[in-house]
Amino acid sequence: MKFIYTGIHVANLERAIRFYTEQLGMKLLFKTQIKETGGSVAWLRSKGSSQILELNWYPKKYRHGGTKGLDHLAFQVKDVDATYSKITRKFKGTIKPFMEGRWILGYVKDPDGNWIELGQLQKKTRKR
Amino acid sequence: MKFIYTGIHVANLERAIRFYTEQLGMKLLFKTQIKETGGSVAWLRSKGSSQILELNWYPKKYRHGGTKGLDHLAFQVKDVDATYSKITRKFKGTIKPFMEGRWILGYVKDPDGNWIELGQLQKKTRKR
Repeated sequence: MKFIYTGIHVANLERAIRFYTEQLGMKLLFKTQIKETGGSVAWLRSKGSSQILELNWYPKKYRHGGTKGLDHLAFQVKDVDATYSKITRKFKGTIKPFMEGRWILGYVKDPDGNWIELGQLQKKTRKR
Repeated sequence: MKFIYTGIHVANLERAIRFYTEQLGMKLLFKTQIKETGGSVAWLRSKGSSQILELNWYPKKYRHGGTKGLDHLAFQVKDVDATYSKITRKFKGTIKPFMEGRWILGYVKDPDGNWIELGQLQKKTRKR
């Protein structure tokens, strides 16, 4: 299991990208729309670092945490179903594992209520 | 300038450390008290990853963002004073640069109001 990135909410994606690139020297790796929600995400990284910052912009109905602050901490895992089942024996699950492109994603909450994304990368698309 | 870690608020440090180590396999790197605030912080990392997760527990009077969610995103910079001055020409500063141990730290806000820590590591302690 590996902590791979931090996702934060932003109210204006372009404004936030400008801030993190122009003021803090990060590089924009990519920007994409999320088909399922109509939201947009951008990934940024500093030169010489593997720390990824994800900026998350959501349309109103998907704003589970407002327009600033932490959206989620993302962990890559080998088996989302197994990890999701294990964690939700003791902690809250929020979204059961589902497919999104080449990833299987599931969401749980940490003891303070922060969203944790569990992600499993599929080499080939599998049907669920 | 380098994005070095994500700090999140927690209401109970030990409970959060247990969650991230036992449920998500992270390793506790260190845990320490912050003399200036009476708060405590812990650093965790996943095996094979350089992404650092900082858990921040604060006594009541220092809880600028509650007991969950994002506390701050930390960037290591070469010159905090210069970076702080540059950013605060256009964006809000929250805490002017000050010494904390071997670090000079300053805080600014991104356009969404998220706290950004600017940190400069001093090889030798300098007087300010």
